Amino acid sequence: MKQISIKSYKAEGFIGKYQRLIKDVVIPYQYEVLSDNLPDTEKSHVIDNFINAGKALRGEDVGDGFYGMVFQDSDAAKWLEAVAYSLAIFPDKKLEETADRLIDIIAEAQDEDGYLNTYYTIKDTDKRWTNILEGHELYCSGHMIEAAVAYYEATGKDKLLSVMEKNAEHIYNVFIRDGHKGYPGHPEIELALLRLYDVTGNEKHLELAKHFIDIRGVDPHYYEKERQSRSWTVWNGDGRNHEYQQSAAPVRQQKDAVGHSVRAVYLYTAMADLAAKTADEGLKKTCENLFDSITKRRMYITGGIGSSVHGEAFTVDYDLPNDTVYAETCASIGLMFFMERMLGNEVQGIYADVMEKAFYNTVLAGMSLSGKRFFYVNPLEVIPGISGNAVTHRHALPQRPKWYTCACCPPNVARLISSFGKYAYTEKDDRAYCNMFAAGGVDFRNGVKLLCETEYPYGFTVKYKVIKGGKIAVHIPCWSEEYTLKVNGKKAAGEEKDGYAYLTVNDGDEILLSLDSKVKTVYPSSRIPALSGYAAIMRGPLVYCFEGVDNGGDVLSLRLCGDAEKTAVQEGCLGGTEIIWVQGKRVHTEEDLYSFKKAEEEKCTLKAVPYYLWGNRGENQMRVWLPEA
Amino acid sequence: MKQISIKSYKAEGFIGKYQRLIKDVVIPYQYEVLSDNLPDTEKSHVIDNFINAGKALRGEDVGDGFYGMVFQDSDAAKWLEAVAYSLAIFPDKKLEETADRLIDIIAEAQDEDGYLNTYYTIKDTDKRWTNILEGHELYCSGHMIEAAVAYYEATGKDKLLSVMEKNAEHIYNVFIRDGHKGYPGHPEIELALLRLYDVTGNEKHLELAKHFIDIRGVDPHYYEKERQSRSWTVWNGDGRNHEYQQSAAPVRQQKDAVGHSVRAVYLYTAMADLAAKTADEGLKKTCENLFDSITKRRMYITGGIGSSVHGEAFTVDYDLPNDTVYAETCASIGLMFFMERMLGNEVQGIYADVMEKAFYNTVLAGMSLSGKRFFYVNPLEVIPGISGNAVTHRHALPQRPKWYTCACCPPNVARLISSFGKYAYTEKDDRAYCNMFAAGGVDFRNGVKLLCETEYPYGFTVKYKVIKGGKIAVHIPCWSEEYTLKVNGKKAAGEEKDGYAYLTVNDGDEILLSLDSKVKTVYPSSRIPALSGYAAIMRGPLVYCFEGVDNGGDVLSLRLCGDAEKTAVQEGCLGGTEIIWVQGKRVHTEEDLYSFKKAEEEKCTLKAVPYYLWGNRGENQMRVWLPEA
Repeated sequence: MKQISIKSYKAEGFIGKYQRLIKDVVIPYQYEVLSDNLPDTEKSHVIDNFINAGKALRGEDVGDGFYGMVFQDSDAAKWLEAVAYSLAIFPDKKLEETADRLIDIIAEAQDEDGYLNTYYTIKDTDKRWTNILEGHELYCSGHMIEAAVAYYEATGKDKLLSVMEKNAEHIYNVFIRDGHKGYPGHPEIELALLRLYDVTGNEKHLELAKHFIDIRGVDPHYYEKERQSRSWTVWNGDGRNHEYQQSAAPVRQQKDAVGHSVRAVYLYTAMADLAAKTADEGLKKTCENLFDSITKRRMYITGGIGSSVHGEAFTVDYDLPNDTVYAETCASIGLMFFMERMLGNEVQGIYADVMEKAFYNTVLAGMSLSGKRFFYVNPLEVIPGISGNAVTHRHALPQRPKWYTCACCPPNVARLISSFGKYAYTEKDDRAYCNMFAAGGVDFRNGVKLLCETEYPYGFTVKYKVIKGGKIAVHIPCWSEEYTLKVNGKKAAGEEKDGYAYLTVNDGDEILLSLDSKVKTVYPSSRIPALSGYAAIMRGPLVYCFEGVDNGGDVLSLRLCGDAEKTAVQEGCLGGTEIIWVQGKRVHTEEDLYSFKKAEEEKCTLKAVPYYLWGNRGENQMRVWLPEA
Repeated sequence: MKQISIKSYKAEGFIGKYQRLIKDVVIPYQYEVLSDNLPDTEKSHVIDNFINAGKALRGEDVGDGFYGMVFQDSDAAKWLEAVAYSLAIFPDKKLEETADRLIDIIAEAQDEDGYLNTYYTIKDTDKRWTNILEGHELYCSGHMIEAAVAYYEATGKDKLLSVMEKNAEHIYNVFIRDGHKGYPGHPEIELALLRLYDVTGNEKHLELAKHFIDIRGVDPHYYEKERQSRSWTVWNGDGRNHEYQQSAAPVRQQKDAVGHSVRAVYLYTAMADLAAKTADEGLKKTCENLFDSITKRRMYITGGIGSSVHGEAFTVDYDLPNDTVYAETCASIGLMFFMERMLGNEVQGIYADVMEKAFYNTVLAGMSLSGKRFFYVNPLEVIPGISGNAVTHRHALPQRPKWYTCACCPPNVARLISSFGKYAYTEKDDRAYCNMFAAGGVDFRNGVKLLCETEYPYGFTVKYKVIKGGKIAVHIPCWSEEYTLKVNGKKAAGEEKDGYAYLTVNDGDEILLSLDSKVKTVYPSSRIPALSGYAAIMRGPLVYCFEGVDNGGDVLSLRLCGDAEKTAVQEGCLGGTEIIWVQGKRVHTEEDLYSFKKAEEEKCTLKAVPYYLWGNRGENQMRVWLPEA
């Protein structure tokens, strides 16, 4: 399975609007942030860091010229990667020039031996490769490799690609030739090296990725020994939290998704890609087990993962609190990566289902409608006064901030949305796969050419006009309990298997998929303590939520009766989104904390909006799950 | 309002059995623990610490002779205090000799100037009074003063009292005469000094207690300055968490119950006592506000307080999670102290209600039926696999341990139960108050003499045989929506006011109070997010809970229909306790985390046991609150 070329999906409709927002608003906004041009916003300094690193290499005194986290470089990398995807679909000379200038600056910051990292070039040149646990050198290289690959694919320009090939060569020398025993503290470079290998075909890139995956956890105590061998530390990490580090055992022996959730899914992404690239059945099986661990026992209905702020991590099975959840935006983005690579191992609709769930709920919730505010944490319940305030809820903010000191999520959302086509459409040999519905035209390398017309996720018919025929496979989402698939008005003749409908179509054919448009009530497993007696509503891939602003300011007193009354687009509300009105009740409890008097109940209509849009209308209560009446 | 003499309540019935357990099992067991005679149990070393401190004062080399927390001394003090109460009601020569010996050892550990603390006598003599934030010297003195007062009251022996008067004099000199600016890091000495004052009448004791209360928070930055002025620390506390320390503002300006919950209620206890002793209306009003903050917005149905493990602390209004709760046993004991002192300010049934709620639920839950295992944390929901296991739930153990490194709770339970009479019965001038129902005979100082016959908390008639008549006041618990009060078979003639029935009775009269025996369903305020749609059951003062062992191993799938089916004592179950069977349902949900299929429901009968007895039959699920069906 291959991703389509990043140039070959021209989005329209819902995705098109979002990609346009990334181009018009998010990328320029983030460039202003990265350049420290926005007042009242967390300082970034990332571009200045690169400039100063270049100066330092030329022997200039830059003094205290580094600012930010040890992984600050990655913010520039992710922005560049987003720019690359955007340029691939919306050519823009000025933006390309800006990106080229930044690439020049980055290239100047590379040391003679290929080393590239501003922190260890400006501040601590003697500390290079001494703190693989916390140092994030491999992480930053990984992101810059991804940017380089994307920029090359988008523009054909190979300056950054050359820089990163040289950097990869340097890393190869350190870890393979010279036998450095470390493995990535924050997985990322593994998946990046595999992407680099796709472009370069350089076997060393595959070898290095495989090396990092294979040695992980073989010596679970590597990080502790490393800590003891050096006198400095970034965050005082002692390396002993093997779960957090996904280092408790060699990866092939890992069964549960544990530890820092972003690190976990970035690692699993690389594992899944390596399994596909090397036909490693054992590694594929490991990935399937980890997928089961996540999706059968540790995932939120929104596709959020990571139940706790402690370690930004997975916890244990069925521990899925709504309010103290972490569910980092980056983690759901990483989950999409993992799912896309799993499709490369085996075409199973469940992977596309989870990819879609993560995208339409947690990933999109990570950014405000305006494109200028971002969530890092994506709670499923927010009660101002408690959320963002109680010691256990400080991380669960009721409003999206403009930026973060640790700003991993905002540019991650930008690069994900602008490369949506890579996840929606893939191909394998002569078959074209439609994994997610995305309006617009798409050209597959194998010659298939489709034009997709749909109002999805708000419309439930998906029409593919076949511009150039061939073999295709269309994902049938698991949430669609009923559907019809027609070609030229007649029931489609193809086979359905594992959540995909397989068809062979001809030029000029029209495929019409009619999906289940019903509002569904969702019931949780009784094994989830946080959800006993609760229900939620979904329509299509969208999880809905109840906000105070739509429900008299108070969602805590709402009860869900289950049946949808009506759905309609409400003009002016959240840019004109599909609202759902459902039957419910409001309870009027006593003032006392506890009372023997049963609350009076009043029938009412509850108004729900898509979860991804919550928090766009000021601070207010929000709940995805309501008690069933 | 005064407490009755600790000798004057001879318990029978429920309380009698518990006090007998303390005498027969708990006190000997804890002495073995304190003497390090129990295998596989956390080491205490507290008696050896005192022995070694004595040796050190005599110039002997005791090397590494201190073991334990900086406040280890207090475990001995609380044990001694429990012994005192026990001796007051169950004279026991052998136990008294053991206690006398320990007191001799303690006396030997006192320095010439009156200083008494083994940590700073064995280990760090130069650090005395330099770390009021963390050092716990005042805390340990406070507990030993309480022990001294109790031992004097129980036995008439004043050796320990003299030691602690000398110690109080020393503290007076340090803080008043010499102007040390510190105020207690862990409040306790304030309430202890007020008790000492009751016995000694020494105005310096009152003055010192008032001083510590008055200067608290006047300089909110005291602890930070102290930290900066010394090179050592116990737990690396920086003194900046003003809420945790109850030091953000002078106490009279404090409105919300904040910070470490035990520290808070120990402080409020002293404040309430001081308000009563000095007729300080402003301070009384402050205490009333803090009472409201706790009971109207921050208290569990079980009388547990402290919603979070972070700082073992109160959090914010209505933040009352069942599973990650702290609800330390000591905090509910402290809440009882506070309530008893509030009754001294004003006779209000609500104070007795909260005292009773804390006692019969959280305090009693703090100890196993066997008297040999103890809870520090008292969760209202326990799911093995998550509780005690997930990073956010590590503190919420599903089973009572034998002892703790920080062993504040076990001896605290022992001293509370063995002094139950002080809380149940108080007096003011010529009126005798029955605040809680406690079978057995009670002699008030004012001459009133009653014999109480009741099966309470399992029986709902309370008979007082008046041995010696006079004015009495009987608390009518708020949970008893209906009741009848008769004297000699006729409706009682007295007045009912603020939750108390006021009567004048004669020798030989028989008072019969018939309380509401119905099983009640309790509904939470909709402001508590953790309880939306949930209900619990109570009978009398007892909150009930549902354990897996009684309910097919799985309480997460249970739903409560509300009405009690029957109640009965089940022989053999938890020592023969009153069981409640209520109508309910069990839902059979799908295996998937989330499903569109509504669960099949099956009517069933749920079995509930008193909350305080949970966890006595092995590790299993437990819930106080269930979703309403």
